[in-house]
Amino acid sequence: MHVRLLCGIENSRFAKGPGKKLFLGVIGVKEGSFEIGIIGGAGGMGSWCSDILRGQGYRVHAAGRNSGMAVEEMARRCSVVIVSVPIEATLSVIDRVGPLLSGDSLLMDLTSVKEAPVRAMLSSTGAEVMGCHPLFGPRPDSVDDLSIVLCPARVDRWASWPSGIFAAAGIKIIETTPEEHDRVMAVVQGLNHLDTILLALTLGHCGIERSDLERFATPLFRSRLAALDRVMAGNHRMYAEIICSNPRVASLIEEFEKILGELRGYIEKGDGAGFAARTATARPAKVIPPVED
Amino acid sequence: MHVRLLCGIENSRFAKGPGKKLFLGVIGVKEGSFEIGIIGGAGGMGSWCSDILRGQGYRVHAAGRNSGMAVEEMARRCSVVIVSVPIEATLSVIDRVGPLLSGDSLLMDLTSVKEAPVRAMLSSTGAEVMGCHPLFGPRPDSVDDLSIVLCPARVDRWASWPSGIFAAAGIKIIETTPEEHDRVMAVVQGLNHLDTILLALTLGHCGIERSDLERFATPLFRSRLAALDRVMAGNHRMYAEIICSNPRVASLIEEFEKILGELRGYIEKGDGAGFAARTATARPAKVIPPVED
Repeated sequence: MHVRLLCGIENSRFAKGPGKKLFLGVIGVKEGSFEIGIIGGAGGMGSWCSDILRGQGYRVHAAGRNSGMAVEEMARRCSVVIVSVPIEATLSVIDRVGPLLSGDSLLMDLTSVKEAPVRAMLSSTGAEVMGCHPLFGPRPDSVDDLSIVLCPARVDRWASWPSGIFAAAGIKIIETTPEEHDRVMAVVQGLNHLDTILLALTLGHCGIERSDLERFATPLFRSRLAALDRVMAGNHRMYAEIICSNPRVASLIEEFEKILGELRGYIEKGDGAGFAARTATARPAKVIPPVED
Repeated sequence: MHVRLLCGIENSRFAKGPGKKLFLGVIGVKEGSFEIGIIGGAGGMGSWCSDILRGQGYRVHAAGRNSGMAVEEMARRCSVVIVSVPIEATLSVIDRVGPLLSGDSLLMDLTSVKEAPVRAMLSSTGAEVMGCHPLFGPRPDSVDDLSIVLCPARVDRWASWPSGIFAAAGIKIIETTPEEHDRVMAVVQGLNHLDTILLALTLGHCGIERSDLERFATPLFRSRLAALDRVMAGNHRMYAEIICSNPRVASLIEEFEKILGELRGYIEKGDGAGFAARTATARPAKVIPPVED
């Protein structure tokens, strides 16, 4: 597996101001001396990214579908253009802006999948290309334990600038390939969100009132219900695209259904001993105190 | 739905010492003047229950499979006998102890299912019968928000004693029928634990190292992983019995599989819009800020 951490950047000596200066030094520009454009800059992740950059002294322009700076002007003025639009619109936005960028600029995206957007960026532009995926939502509770994935696809003078920006904001950098990102995220986001939505929809058909589910809730069920609520109150289209646009999710579902069929077999026979033996075949989990509720 | 809260007991005036005295008054006994036996008293819930009772001044005896007080002596000495053994052993233990109890004593169980044990208690003994299910594990993090289900199946002089004991320990009382309990718990425990075990087993087959799942984890996946770990580090046989001994779980799986098939259809076609529209058919969840990770 080709994944490596930029350890130097994670080092706190580099993650503060001097680190940022170092990175700016590498690309030979002074803080604030170039402009940055965010397409979709008014959206959740777009405005999060904009806040980070403005906080570090950059001049940031936003382009919306029908507002903000025109994409043509943005491509002319900005040395860095960041695409932060819904997954389903990403490829067409990349196709539109890519050809307008000069070869010494940087094109980035913030999408939750990486293979298709990075491929589209590489083919649509002569600019440098860095895929990017913040592993958190636009309003994280705290900066602790936040990570961001960077996929440096074609970089030279801009190679270290994005990691410098995010590391200076206290965020852990994971550098990997688009393929490796999508392979792991098919589980971490694809299968996990699918499972959450599946359970939420099943609860909607189980014939038990929400108030009774809450009243009889165990601690484990209570925290599950909170996660279900968060996903079901969120952007359905975004979750759907995370699941449907990652081709590896389908084979995970196949495995999921196969194991479900096995477990159903034990349940239909009332074979608790068999079910328990099958459960025990999982690789050992972390050693933690069980709650057994 | 026949469920009612014993509001008077939840009232803090009654949940403290005076409340307990009141309940003891009802059954015409003085605190500590009768003995209590717990079969399986050395186990997790058995020792939790024993601690509660001893803390309230009772003399408690424990019977294990090969240790502690003999069940025959326990039945002779104790006015209250509580069965706290694994689900799969519950019915045979009830059949053994039930006939030994006098008609003025109380037989209780602490099992996670209620229909079969309560039926077995009613038919095996002439004593009073109260089914009971603490909706938490033996080592709860705090007493806040803990609930216990009571199913008064045949009670007269002992009707209020169990709720007085638990309310005095700060635990919320839910009084309901065994049927209603098992109907709701088929979802809250059965389906929820099944789904957790299913996801854990699928993760074990997904070909991605645990360390990579952790490194790429979003906040939602991180909390899901913690729940998986807790269940997989717990008592597999107990979870298996909770799932396999509740006959309503099978029909929930049918619905779960049907919805999974529908969702798979959208995924295989890459139809994010259709998937999102299906997601939106769930009954509205609580209004909470989404995290969208």
